[in-house]
Amino acid sequence: KKSFRVVVLPGDGIGPEVVAEAVKVLKALFEESPDVELKLETRLFGGCAIDETGEALPASTLQACKEADAILMGSIGGPKWGVNSKVRPEPGLLALRKALGVFANIRPTKFGSDSLVVNSPLKESITRGVDIFVVRELIGGIYFGERKEQDVAPQENVAWDTMIYSVEEVQRITRVAAQIALASDPPLPIHSVDKANVLASSRLWRKVVTETLESEYPQIKLDHQLVDSAAMLLVSSPRKLNGVVLTENLFGDILSDEASVIPGSLGLLPSASLAGAPSLPSSHSFKPTSGLYEPIHGSAPDIAGKGIANPIGTILSAALLLRYSLGLEKHAQLIESAVRKALDSKNAGGWELRTADLGGNIGTKEIGDRIVEIL
Amino acid sequence: KKSFRVVVLPGDGIGPEVVAEAVKVLKALFEESPDVELKLETRLFGGCAIDETGEALPASTLQACKEADAILMGSIGGPKWGVNSKVRPEPGLLALRKALGVFANIRPTKFGSDSLVVNSPLKESITRGVDIFVVRELIGGIYFGERKEQDVAPQENVAWDTMIYSVEEVQRITRVAAQIALASDPPLPIHSVDKANVLASSRLWRKVVTETLESEYPQIKLDHQLVDSAAMLLVSSPRKLNGVVLTENLFGDILSDEASVIPGSLGLLPSASLAGAPSLPSSHSFKPTSGLYEPIHGSAPDIAGKGIANPIGTILSAALLLRYSLGLEKHAQLIESAVRKALDSKNAGGWELRTADLGGNIGTKEIGDRIVEIL
Ligand SMILES: CC(C)[C@H](C(=O)O)[C@@H](O)C(=O)O
Ligand SMILES: CC(C)[C@H](C(=O)O)[C@@H](O)C(=O)O
Repeated sequence: KKSFRVVVLPGDGIGPEVVAEAVKVLKALFEESPDVELKLETRLFGGCAIDETGEALPASTLQACKEADAILMGSIGGPKWGVNSKVRPEPGLLALRKALGVFANIRPTKFGSDSLVVNSPLKESITRGVDIFVVRELIGGIYFGERKEQDVAPQENVAWDTMIYSVEEVQRITRVAAQIALASDPPLPIHSVDKANVLASSRLWRKVVTETLESEYPQIKLDHQLVDSAAMLLVSSPRKLNGVVLTENLFGDILSDEASVIPGSLGLLPSASLAGAPSLPSSHSFKPTSGLYEPIHGSAPDIAGKGIANPIGTILSAALLLRYSLGLEKHAQLIESAVRKALDSKNAGGWELRTADLGGNIGTKEIGDRIVEIL
Repeated sequence: KKSFRVVVLPGDGIGPEVVAEAVKVLKALFEESPDVELKLETRLFGGCAIDETGEALPASTLQACKEADAILMGSIGGPKWGVNSKVRPEPGLLALRKALGVFANIRPTKFGSDSLVVNSPLKESITRGVDIFVVRELIGGIYFGERKEQDVAPQENVAWDTMIYSVEEVQRITRVAAQIALASDPPLPIHSVDKANVLASSRLWRKVVTETLESEYPQIKLDHQLVDSAAMLLVSSPRKLNGVVLTENLFGDILSDEASVIPGSLGLLPSASLAGAPSLPSSHSFKPTSGLYEPIHGSAPDIAGKGIANPIGTILSAALLLRYSLGLEKHAQLIESAVRKALDSKNAGGWELRTADLGGNIGTKEIGDRIVEIL
């Protein structure tokens, strides 16, 4: 019997509510499984950890995360620990990513049937058929380069940050994008996004992406987009970016958030942050990759505690966890098809299972229960 | 009789075609004017300058621009001078901005009646009533900080760029945003965009914007948005950003392009890059500000020479030139209302004056002629 350790970080705001549903789904899948055992350990992280321990990322949490096969996270932060607080949750998240070495952030921007496009802010003619994976470099670039705050000598009236990339950092994220592209047949095209007409780090980026793909994955189509033009295309004709959008940390932060509002509901979308290239589902040799999985929505303090948050982003994050870190592709697909069924089920009044974000009035728990039922 | 020198830089692609129409409009306004004389001088700039002189920004062009009261530009660049060319147009543009000291880039994202929202990729319910001015810092930040290319010692496998801001740079652009906000009654709110949860330069930005507005313009409402969340809001509920969006160079590059596709046609939108804060239209003492005016669209090589490009972005840029650099507010308004009339005129078949980008088949010249006629 295979045994896996999964650390659960419920976090703040709606985090605990949505994580509880994903845990419910995982338990339903594995509680009576003869071949797989999941050991779930819940730890403090984020604002709740600051309140209890004074730190966003307590040493015991970090230790547990490092020893785990994978981590499932809710969401962190909230007005209680805002910009003016001495200790804030966000640096804890950056420290956790860095300590775990999860350099590859993967975000599908589409889930489920086109029945959801009614929720998109874009016209149906623009948004129908959009299918983009954003692959964002997560532990390099301007997030982790040297910086200087204002009021520090010399030049106290100046502050700066460094956007820095090495050849090796760009190679490894390019290989992750390639693996994601190859998981489809025919392989998806890769759209690499940079600002090579201005930035030296982007010129390195463009050169290394090109060389890596040409020499290691010649079967994948590649084009390059400037970040300003990509931000425009995502709104005006997003289908032109169908495939994999590969980009550095800061551009990825901006573009993946922009992309995530296109398909209609943020609440549905999962993300995976990996410490290595994922194995192809078709390959016979699964290589485990430790990873941090979380929905892409925030902690939504305004609706916390009301039991109305959409747990699907977290449930689908759990599916990605099974796929990429535990090699349980079949179980991942079970979850995904159960979610799809739940979303597509209709009753006399129309779509049956919709939380408030999708215009319905079904609660967080009911969605989880229904998905467990379908499983 | 007041006399002004205006340098005209037609540039590449559709640049010469659209600039010709704006020049036509300016001539119609002032050719027989008893009080204002406009001296228009055309110079080489961009790809066409590279072809003729080997440089994107020839010394004589720079000299003329420095001596002028204002500059009207078409668009530059094209595949002929792509990333692999030794000399490219873009560094010429950055050098021109820096040499002229035009630190404030101003882009309204709305023009004309709501009749145009049909062209927006966003649903009408989302895009109706959106009215945003983007104010982008244009000669600081990561565009002009120190950088190191790959293959340069030490650490040849690494490249980096520096995002750097001083207190003074942020103060002066904040004052421009404040002037734009105060030109409306009641003053528009300012949404300052940064990434203060990660970047030191953004923390300086946020602090200086806050202090400058609180002490000098307490009547203006201010809030702060993270750049990822602003990129999302622009698509999902852009009206929440109505007012002035104030941001640094790179974020402004991305967000202003993203914002520009919201109202429906890129081809309509002008921009102004100013070397100082603009005078309020209501103030009695106009202070001239030298400036560079251009439509926000690119050189569109695919449609160059066909006579179908939309000249309205350039014509409205000429209006901004009259307003901000020459203090001819009334003439600016004359152009703007003529354009509005042209856009709103209908014939039996529907909207009469639409170029291809707006779904019509009226040519570049016809639009210019018609606007002159209305004037
Ligand atoms: C919280 C913040 C530091 C973080 C980031 O910028 O990476 C967030 O926006 C994200 O995208 O996960
Ligand atoms: C051409 C390029 C260098 C320029 C920029 O990034 O500033 C352009 O995108 C713009 O916004 O005017």
